[in-house]
Amino acid sequence: MSQSAVDPRALDQTIEKSEPWFRASLQALVEHPTVSPGGGHEADIRRGAEAARNLVRALGGEAELVETAGTPAVWGGFTPAGARAAVIVYNHLDVQPADLATWTRGEPFRFQVEAHHERTFLYRGRGSTDDKGPALAALRAAAHAAEIGIPLAVRFLWETEEEIGSPHFAEVVSRIQAGAAGMPGPAASAVIVSDSIWPSAAVPAMSTGLRGGLNGLFRLRTASKEAHSGLTGGVARNPVRELCLLAAAIHGARFWHEGAIPPAPAEVAGFAASGFDAAYFKRSYGLEKIETEVPLEMMLRTWARSTFELHGLAGGYTGPGVKTAVPKEAELKWSFRLVHGQDPGRLETRLRDFVAAVNPDVEIEVTGRLLPYLGGLAGPAADAVRAGMTSAFGREPVPVREGGSIGAVSIMTEMLGLPVAFLPLSLPEHGYHAPDEYFDWQQAAGGMRAFVHAFAAYAAACA
Amino acid sequence: MSQSAVDPRALDQTIEKSEPWFRASLQALVEHPTVSPGGGHEADIRRGAEAARNLVRALGGEAELVETAGTPAVWGGFTPAGARAAVIVYNHLDVQPADLATWTRGEPFRFQVEAHHERTFLYRGRGSTDDKGPALAALRAAAHAAEIGIPLAVRFLWETEEEIGSPHFAEVVSRIQAGAAGMPGPAASAVIVSDSIWPSAAVPAMSTGLRGGLNGLFRLRTASKEAHSGLTGGVARNPVRELCLLAAAIHGARFWHEGAIPPAPAEVAGFAASGFDAAYFKRSYGLEKIETEVPLEMMLRTWARSTFELHGLAGGYTGPGVKTAVPKEAELKWSFRLVHGQDPGRLETRLRDFVAAVNPDVEIEVTGRLLPYLGGLAGPAADAVRAGMTSAFGREPVPVREGGSIGAVSIMTEMLGLPVAFLPLSLPEHGYHAPDEYFDWQQAAGGMRAFVHAFAAYAAACA
Repeated sequence: MSQSAVDPRALDQTIEKSEPWFRASLQALVEHPTVSPGGGHEADIRRGAEAARNLVRALGGEAELVETAGTPAVWGGFTPAGARAAVIVYNHLDVQPADLATWTRGEPFRFQVEAHHERTFLYRGRGSTDDKGPALAALRAAAHAAEIGIPLAVRFLWETEEEIGSPHFAEVVSRIQAGAAGMPGPAASAVIVSDSIWPSAAVPAMSTGLRGGLNGLFRLRTASKEAHSGLTGGVARNPVRELCLLAAAIHGARFWHEGAIPPAPAEVAGFAASGFDAAYFKRSYGLEKIETEVPLEMMLRTWARSTFELHGLAGGYTGPGVKTAVPKEAELKWSFRLVHGQDPGRLETRLRDFVAAVNPDVEIEVTGRLLPYLGGLAGPAADAVRAGMTSAFGREPVPVREGGSIGAVSIMTEMLGLPVAFLPLSLPEHGYHAPDEYFDWQQAAGGMRAFVHAFAAYAAACA
Repeated sequence: MSQSAVDPRALDQTIEKSEPWFRASLQALVEHPTVSPGGGHEADIRRGAEAARNLVRALGGEAELVETAGTPAVWGGFTPAGARAAVIVYNHLDVQPADLATWTRGEPFRFQVEAHHERTFLYRGRGSTDDKGPALAALRAAAHAAEIGIPLAVRFLWETEEEIGSPHFAEVVSRIQAGAAGMPGPAASAVIVSDSIWPSAAVPAMSTGLRGGLNGLFRLRTASKEAHSGLTGGVARNPVRELCLLAAAIHGARFWHEGAIPPAPAEVAGFAASGFDAAYFKRSYGLEKIETEVPLEMMLRTWARSTFELHGLAGGYTGPGVKTAVPKEAELKWSFRLVHGQDPGRLETRLRDFVAAVNPDVEIEVTGRLLPYLGGLAGPAADAVRAGMTSAFGREPVPVREGGSIGAVSIMTEMLGLPVAFLPLSLPEHGYHAPDEYFDWQQAAGGMRAFVHAFAAYAAACA
């Protein structure tokens, strides 16, 4: 069977008719607050995973929960008669926290649909674009591919701990490998990941790399109670000041850039052709003041350069005005993003040595470690995705990297030994991790088309 | 009339009998939460001031509220027949905020009395030692001095905005000078301030200097919403990181030490004789890790050296764990303490220039400016206080400085042109500004004795 087995006109009709299904299914997923960071939503995550499993079954697929020491993943799929190959599609069902006070167009876990002149419909709610909407586009596409007889088994691997660095994902993969949630049919020979972003709404993009990371806390306690800054200031050690000084020392140090391998000139030339638009980037993320306005420099800094961020400082006085007390303790939240060539374990050792030298009283808790990932654009899976996106969006996708991290990607490449191709559907304006997150029908419908064509192309390549 | 007019035995009896009055009066003041920082307690402060006014009247004195654009002060006193001179005693009725969660021995605004083997009774509650207890010791002493015919008019000037830097105290002084709350009798020729601390419970001390200060906020906003640190990190400007870097730059700069005049060798020698006990200092303030354990260095750093403190950072994520978002804005709370020779206005100019050079996007709000103060130990008022404390506590007070600030002191010296002498009654263990603040009967009774003797000595000197 060849890619031409897909009748584009019939596919378009099928996809157009599926909008009510897409809308209802996305509502069913978004309204479970499957928030993984910070804990406390385990029951919601389980209900969200069950809802996702039921959506697969309702379309005639198989699906089971894969239990771990953390929250369960979903493993499901379609195995058409005569399937000669199989592909795994990775998405995640967990979401970032959402601070109601910062959402201006409705509540994060109350799904809303809005008509839109360019994008037909906007689907509002936390998780709509990251990553429940793309998961449903792949699901609908796989069901359709099975209906029209594309001889490819499609498996869904939907994790629920992506936003916390995939701590139990290796366990999920082992259980699947051990057949604990097994499905009949051929073994998978590739992974498609649909959890990244086009730099521009006008230019489809295929990601090739992800940043890794290391994140955690610095804690310092210097007293059993807060003290009067007049009576004790000069002798009392101020933990807020000392953690700021430590952060400044790390910022100024070079060790966290060590090992980074710069992108090759050919890849940089690809970046330059990506349609990256500085004004759109700023507007999409609500950035008012940025480090550089030069598009290529912006791409290089977000995709191919390590960072050291501070996320907040707990302890001390944070109410209105000033309270001139010396705090007794403080906790600084930080993260690094790492690029190709760097390793979170190596950075952790260097960081612990550095902190021990600068301020030996500071305690370090590491809360997450993620390997960076850099893949290629060659091979049958990448070719199939490229062909699928080209058919769906009318132009060939440009190769880009992703500034974010997906811990599961390195785990899949290492444990399964399979090539990974990215089929991104989200746009900067959708608001990954931000208030007022949404997804849109143009990207959903295009995504369904791209997946069907990619499945057909991959099946053809494996023939 | 000479100091010998005070019969020590009769005085002791009077003071011992006054414990129930002291206890009930301190309860009446402590249970009004007269918290000035942060606002919102204006009605409680007014009720607290009215309660204080009523206590003066109940002992046969005169007292009125002095209204200002802020919260009212109390102006009151005793004018015995034949008074040839007058002295103003300064205290304050407002208190620091109290976080209930950090109080381990009862609620901050529920007065409690506890028997104690060394100090007879401990009086627990916010404001008990800073500064309501010392105010009541002076009040009882002035009433007794009037009863036994010491020919000195005593005026109480009790402010309610000391903890916020005395923003309307100049207005209080002008209104008193204009006779708005006038009392008959001679004009005051000295001020006694009872709002500072002995370094050691074993050695009475007279303060000679106060640190001044400059405090405020740095604010930085870089985005309209928080952003994904993967997708934007490297391009997004992180306001938490930038404010930490700014603080580190200020910490490392020298400009905030400019102008400081070091204490003369004779004064340093006095410090060395003060009985300052490093272990007691640490224990009293709950300090576990300090900058130096060398007693003289500790005194020099807290009394005679400028500081730059950070009190808290608002904005960003401060919940459990880490949330790897780039915050959209942040606010850093800071203060400087200044010493003799420095000026908060001059520092503010230097600070604004420095910040504009390091990070021109940072906004500065200055919330308080206090002049440092350095007085002497010579003159009839200081002599009278020294004689009074010597009689009351059995040994001559040592000269020390105070690390804290009392904005009213500079205002009184400038506007009234009067010498200021300090008659401190608080101890480090009492917990100025700290949880579980208390005062004790030994210091209250000793304070009453010291004030009566000091009034007698001052009246004699003015004869």
